[in-house]
Amino acid sequence: MKLNNFVGGAWLEGAGAGDALVDPVTGEEVARASSQGIDVGAALGFARTQGGPALRQRAYGERAEMLAKMGEVLTANREEYFRISQINSGATQADAAFDVDGAIYTVKYYAKIGKALAEGKMLKEGATLPLSKTNVFAAQHFLVPAKGAALFINAFNFPAWGFCEKAGPALLSGVPIVVKPATATSWLTQRMIEDIVEADIFPAGSISILCGSARDLPEHVREEDIISFTGSAQTAIGIRSNANVLRRAVRVNIEADSINSTILGPDAAPGTDVFDGLVKEVVREMALKAGQKCTAIRRVFAPRAQFAALGEAIAARLGGVKVGNPRNPEVKMGPVVNKSQQASCFEGIGKLKQECKVVFDGGGNFKPIDADPQKSAFVPPTLLACENGRGAKFVHDVEVFGPAATIVAYDSTEDLIAQLRRGMGSLVGSIFSNDAAFVRQVVLGIGDLHGRIMVVDSSVGGQQTGHGNVVPSCLHGGPGRAGGGEELAGLRALLLYHRRFVLQGPPSCLEGLAGLCVDASLVHS
Amino acid sequence: MKLNNFVGGAWLEGAGAGDALVDPVTGEEVARASSQGIDVGAALGFARTQGGPALRQRAYGERAEMLAKMGEVLTANREEYFRISQINSGATQADAAFDVDGAIYTVKYYAKIGKALAEGKMLKEGATLPLSKTNVFAAQHFLVPAKGAALFINAFNFPAWGFCEKAGPALLSGVPIVVKPATATSWLTQRMIEDIVEADIFPAGSISILCGSARDLPEHVREEDIISFTGSAQTAIGIRSNANVLRRAVRVNIEADSINSTILGPDAAPGTDVFDGLVKEVVREMALKAGQKCTAIRRVFAPRAQFAALGEAIAARLGGVKVGNPRNPEVKMGPVVNKSQQASCFEGIGKLKQECKVVFDGGGNFKPIDADPQKSAFVPPTLLACENGRGAKFVHDVEVFGPAATIVAYDSTEDLIAQLRRGMGSLVGSIFSNDAAFVRQVVLGIGDLHGRIMVVDSSVGGQQTGHGNVVPSCLHGGPGRAGGGEELAGLRALLLYHRRFVLQGPPSCLEGLAGLCVDASLVHS
Repeated sequence: MKLNNFVGGAWLEGAGAGDALVDPVTGEEVARASSQGIDVGAALGFARTQGGPALRQRAYGERAEMLAKMGEVLTANREEYFRISQINSGATQADAAFDVDGAIYTVKYYAKIGKALAEGKMLKEGATLPLSKTNVFAAQHFLVPAKGAALFINAFNFPAWGFCEKAGPALLSGVPIVVKPATATSWLTQRMIEDIVEADIFPAGSISILCGSARDLPEHVREEDIISFTGSAQTAIGIRSNANVLRRAVRVNIEADSINSTILGPDAAPGTDVFDGLVKEVVREMALKAGQKCTAIRRVFAPRAQFAALGEAIAARLGGVKVGNPRNPEVKMGPVVNKSQQASCFEGIGKLKQECKVVFDGGGNFKPIDADPQKSAFVPPTLLACENGRGAKFVHDVEVFGPAATIVAYDSTEDLIAQLRRGMGSLVGSIFSNDAAFVRQVVLGIGDLHGRIMVVDSSVGGQQTGHGNVVPSCLHGGPGRAGGGEELAGLRALLLYHRRFVLQGPPSCLEGLAGLCVDASLVHS
Repeated sequence: MKLNNFVGGAWLEGAGAGDALVDPVTGEEVARASSQGIDVGAALGFARTQGGPALRQRAYGERAEMLAKMGEVLTANREEYFRISQINSGATQADAAFDVDGAIYTVKYYAKIGKALAEGKMLKEGATLPLSKTNVFAAQHFLVPAKGAALFINAFNFPAWGFCEKAGPALLSGVPIVVKPATATSWLTQRMIEDIVEADIFPAGSISILCGSARDLPEHVREEDIISFTGSAQTAIGIRSNANVLRRAVRVNIEADSINSTILGPDAAPGTDVFDGLVKEVVREMALKAGQKCTAIRRVFAPRAQFAALGEAIAARLGGVKVGNPRNPEVKMGPVVNKSQQASCFEGIGKLKQECKVVFDGGGNFKPIDADPQKSAFVPPTLLACENGRGAKFVHDVEVFGPAATIVAYDSTEDLIAQLRRGMGSLVGSIFSNDAAFVRQVVLGIGDLHGRIMVVDSSVGGQQTGHGNVVPSCLHGGPGRAGGGEELAGLRALLLYHRRFVLQGPPSCLEGLAGLCVDASLVHS
């Protein structure tokens, strides 16, 4: 099976043999993807000239209705998406739900909150500002949908959610999308778009997909376009430093890998509920999607007094996680996505071992359930421990994109904050503690370098939404090595797809445009 | 005289002979600047570790008071700044006022509007979001001042305003500044900072200045820092593609040169007030600061029927502009900043002449008043005309950073919009017309590619604030080749210096931080 590309309003087959997509449990090829021979410049142009104007003829509320229909279509085909997730991503039922149900939830969320923007076609921001004493000249800021296309270059780990969490805000904004999923898992994204296209919900040119290589896509973007990239910091640098992107100052949103942390408070001894809560969270984060989440916990900070006890507790729980073929219902953790990612994980763990002791690695005889260790791409859950975090380098810098985490000791709140900041900017940090003063000090010490901080105390218990779980009402993104991007956060996500300008003129002129608008405070609040 | 650098809380002389600053009327050297031998990494470090924490101990309201004192100090030394402007920039009284008084006004503006943030030390954004059914877990977005330094790399044309329009929002935010003015006119910036430092208003480390070469400054920024650059698109690309800036995803705000336009409506025949208003505006924009404003008019769009008449009217008025030594009170237009800029202007005009006819260039015998044409850096006011804008290239792409503009004919509103968009993103466009439907169509056709649009009809008359005039309550910046940056727009300018994060946790934890906050709606509205 070769995945077709949907560009210029038609399904087109790429040239050549294409790249293979595999089942990471069996190593067997399940599909092929090729973008060769596709005119990617024309694909972007079609989105810009056909999709954009047609979408923007509609009001926000009408586009919200389209998203609602999209949500229905995806719900109707949910089982098929689970099937593809299992075959192409080695996903357990929980893994597939995290991606697919997360995707559907996010689309429906934007369909729902988008209704508030109703009949509006652009946003009016702030008050009208008088600029003359006799009120014949004034100013008004506006936010208008960009007249370009949104190019999504996405990561392999969320073929469903990664597409939908970006598509919702872009389409609601009136900006057509061109999706380039990571080749390894592009089948699921492509299948979802096939279903959406077949349902004939959006005007022609609203949604396009390229499967396979991104080729020279960044060479074809224009000043009107937006690039939203999720993936490695290295690829992000390539996009940001592309000559065409630089020359046109194309707006680029990056969400890159980051060294996320969870923190055990100084008050949390073994046997307390926050101690147990953190242990469960670390193990869940390692097992879910085999740790292949950009938000997953990489560093586990423990007060030195609890350093050993925490390692033992996490290791004990990890020992109960069954790893293997997700077709076996007892299995709680699947493989990573392919042999290449497996090798990358082993390489990263190797670096960490230079600074850390191994607390748990599945033992010397690790063997996945119902799978051939040679053909499959499993990484045993691996817990490391670093006594001297201040002197360590890799612990704060090497992201193993798999089921691995490192416990790091800290000696004081100041020491903890200094070590946390060595992550150079992260998507998320979480704190498990009942010590409110400690929590406050840490939050104020790291808030500027994190996109999200989750605090769990005894009053929260099991009702927290999860260290690694991105909810659409809350910001997703982080500064520095996390890429500096911002996604979701409710209607704030629409800002990426809007352009701000100020109109200075006679009040009648400003009011004329205001008739097209809803108030931007709906987006900012 | 060698301009000292103020870094690490001390005045330090740079090594070597330094670079010469000249009087563009006489060609004589007036000062030297050198940053050689200065530890620029340590300078940024001092700002980060000393200035930042001390500033952020204060509330927004306290920092607004500091800005008010800064405004007083600058006002007290205003005459000296006018003197330096004349000597080092060849500024007329009007030119100096535009820069210096604009600077003082902007600082006082931020001192005034900053009071609204009162006792706050950070911003609380939007509503508290429930994340659990029993309300034990919720989320709140915050905006916190960045914990880094703001590095300003500024342009030569606004040594006073360019420094102050950035300093106001940064210092109000609690972020220390390191200023690197363009060497050619760094004397004025350096003198202003000398006065501010002497007045002992801000904590140590809040303000630093480097005169002369920027050297390897971008190599020393960190993920906590912000770079705000104003200048050429070419230098902007160099900053954006610096390996350290890329690796750390340092936040970079760019305000670069752009091809701004003014538009005569199809209704505006010679003799109408809007026709005359546009003619005056074009001549004012060419003469003021000898056209050395990033917001100045470069393209003048005229309906083909008025193409010739508009050229004649502008040329007639240009003929009355006296160009020469600003020490002569009759002079209305001075030189450009130096011989190098003069050569660059002539080169740009040469390119435009390949596509345009010359309507006015001061005549073959142009001679500046009271100045030696050989030693001085004058460029005669130059008006060109392009009949075939659709076929032209340079007209839409070459910015002559001096007193030059091109009249371009258009044949329909669609043709006009298409030609305007060929500027690839601009800071400002202005429309002179009484045809409300035309104005609306143009605004909606170009708003996404402009930071600011000014509309003048008969009701506005002379009360408009100026095509090229940046008022601090309104957005300054533009997409695409204008750099994609955003400055000013009232308190929205503070967003560049703040980091957004979301805190998820028990309501008591969110409320604890909320006590430090003022509402971010003050910034968004």
